[in-house]
Amino acid sequence: MANFELIRALSMPAKTKIVQLVMDGLGGLPRDLDGKTELEAARTPNLDALAARSELGLAMPVRPGITPGSGPAHLALFGYDPLEYDIGRGVLEALGIGFDLQPEDVAARGNFCTVDENGLITDRRAGRIPTEFNQKLMPLLREIELPGIQTFVETVKEYRFALVLRPTAGQILHANILDTDPQRLGVPSLPARAQDEASEPTSSLVNAWITAARQILRDHPPANSLNLRGLAKDPGLPKFGDVYGLKAGAIATYPMYRGVAKLVGMDVLPVAGEALEDEVETLRAHWSGYDYFFFHVKKTDSAGEDGDFQRKAGVIEHVDEVIVPAILDLDPDVLVVTGDHSTPAALRSHSWHPVPTLLWSRYCRPDGIAEFGERACGRGSLGIFPATDELPLALAHALRLNKYGA
Amino acid sequence: MANFELIRALSMPAKTKIVQLVMDGLGGLPRDLDGKTELEAARTPNLDALAARSELGLAMPVRPGITPGSGPAHLALFGYDPLEYDIGRGVLEALGIGFDLQPEDVAARGNFCTVDENGLITDRRAGRIPTEFNQKLMPLLREIELPGIQTFVETVKEYRFALVLRPTAGQILHANILDTDPQRLGVPSLPARAQDEASEPTSSLVNAWITAARQILRDHPPANSLNLRGLAKDPGLPKFGDVYGLKAGAIATYPMYRGVAKLVGMDVLPVAGEALEDEVETLRAHWSGYDYFFFHVKKTDSAGEDGDFQRKAGVIEHVDEVIVPAILDLDPDVLVVTGDHSTPAALRSHSWHPVPTLLWSRYCRPDGIAEFGERACGRGSLGIFPATDELPLALAHALRLNKYGA
Repeated sequence: MANFELIRALSMPAKTKIVQLVMDGLGGLPRDLDGKTELEAARTPNLDALAARSELGLAMPVRPGITPGSGPAHLALFGYDPLEYDIGRGVLEALGIGFDLQPEDVAARGNFCTVDENGLITDRRAGRIPTEFNQKLMPLLREIELPGIQTFVETVKEYRFALVLRPTAGQILHANILDTDPQRLGVPSLPARAQDEASEPTSSLVNAWITAARQILRDHPPANSLNLRGLAKDPGLPKFGDVYGLKAGAIATYPMYRGVAKLVGMDVLPVAGEALEDEVETLRAHWSGYDYFFFHVKKTDSAGEDGDFQRKAGVIEHVDEVIVPAILDLDPDVLVVTGDHSTPAALRSHSWHPVPTLLWSRYCRPDGIAEFGERACGRGSLGIFPATDELPLALAHALRLNKYGA
Repeated sequence: MANFELIRALSMPAKTKIVQLVMDGLGGLPRDLDGKTELEAARTPNLDALAARSELGLAMPVRPGITPGSGPAHLALFGYDPLEYDIGRGVLEALGIGFDLQPEDVAARGNFCTVDENGLITDRRAGRIPTEFNQKLMPLLREIELPGIQTFVETVKEYRFALVLRPTAGQILHANILDTDPQRLGVPSLPARAQDEASEPTSSLVNAWITAARQILRDHPPANSLNLRGLAKDPGLPKFGDVYGLKAGAIATYPMYRGVAKLVGMDVLPVAGEALEDEVETLRAHWSGYDYFFFHVKKTDSAGEDGDFQRKAGVIEHVDEVIVPAILDLDPDVLVVTGDHSTPAALRSHSWHPVPTLLWSRYCRPDGIAEFGERACGRGSLGIFPATDELPLALAHALRLNKYGA
């Protein structure tokens, strides 16, 4: 039996509350100075005290050695095997800019590019045009009309944009369509080719849009052409309410994470600002209305990507000081503190290293390790475990899973 | 997605170098004297110092409780699930004597046996004839001619030999053919029966060879007949270069390990003698030409099989003194020290116990355990992990795997 079927069959209602606190890119690597990671170097008295009463372990987002993108990493935290459930790149791109994607939409990632007089690609990223240049092209592309389709074109950054096609006449779009980007120079773009019969009408619409767009762009070098990649629809993931029986609320300030939370059926809760304190305020305001909260902290990851060890440790200290006590004050039944993946400052990027994780409930068996850090979690009783286990474990500790078998 | 597809999709070129140092049968069991295993009792200052800077764990070759043969155990170390990828016994037998097996060959393990005047088997191992007796029969069997086929017959040991059929007229042989050994006494041998239509021409050839061979052996009791087992071809395993993008070199002195390395697409490098120092010399000589080295040490296993605790510990000490510093001097990016399985002197045989393993790279999170041994590795952050994870982890630490998903 697949894990979801099992959990769905066993899940039962309860009044208990679960919080999953996700520090993005939490895991790190030792610095030369004293061999401590960002988390180990951070002063975290509240997390350390909580760790002493918790079970500790290292969560593996995908597979040993595999570095995940943000989409797959979050799916895993939500209990979805990221190798089984795939969120297409076009959908991630639209979610990343906060686009309100509907289930019937087809989304694509667009790249402006440069072509020569024969239509052969000379720069796949149009010389990385500034974002302002990109923004000036948007109104022009929004003029393109397709029969029975509403189109949306939105700047992402530099040479990147998002295209969304929304049917307005009840027709169903299908997105099994290949990229137009040939991934090399000196050749023309490819047509948007349907990979099954059902996708053919959609590929015709996409090709018509591309033709019109290239007509317009002709006069705007270096962005005198474009390619579309990752055409995709909302993957129709199983929903939190259905699988887990949880009324789930998402607290996140970045569009991409709000978008992924929406795809799995969470209510995305309003946050007044970008500060951790604003997110805490949202948690307090909605505490009574939800069974489960996904509480996302972005800036650990951003600091890691910038290679800023000290700033990352500082964000962790801020979480320890502001968020952890606030959550505990609300008296949850289960608190999981984790990350979606590692982003060591030493690597300035996501990495494959498993992620320090703590699970507290009144029914856990505390490891008695009074420290929240990579090596401390490596000694914890949860061992190295698949990140997809976090939700089932949290449900169990919240007494929300029935017995299997008699 | 199967693991190989995932790794193949993510692997990317790099200039980094990986060494996998395999001490055959490394894992052991405690002796009465002081409760230490062979590895724990050995004086290994270099491995202990390396362990302090490494991640430790226990590698499980196949499944909990399963004792692997050398073939499956090495496949696992190379990242191939040994339950999915099978090297037929005939192929292993041919590799074991250093036979230069070609992809189009069919190999079989042969057993001399004794039959009575009615052709009923009275001894399945021909009284375990001495190897010299076996060797005298070889020239006789080499006289047998088959149409369009070159045959090779080689002594293995005592009553065992290897038979290889090689097509010379462009025909394709198929080896889905049952053993002729009925596995009991008082009954005749079975014919070599094809299990599919494609294998029927080959089974006819095999049966013709058997008939001719028995004619010859009639006058050579107790080896007056024979059986063939494990007819097989090179399984056509995915190759290191293709799956991992690694130019791989194998350093091993025993034919069997050189053979398995060849099956997975490694270059088998020449070694001047049987000593560890000779293997080190090969590593130095070929260092610049390869991305990955499989460095095999046989004598740990032989000592374990002989039940010689002290000799096994001595081999480990020799590896610590000679090989470990030599590898570190070459400045690899990733060094994995492991074994293919356990061979405790107390059992005088391979065993199911997971194998002490250390992974060092500049991007590891050292467990800070300054000892390389079974119990030390049992406390390490890698936990008990499938041996098939070693290669993906090594690739990640060598920065040779792209991110999965956006």
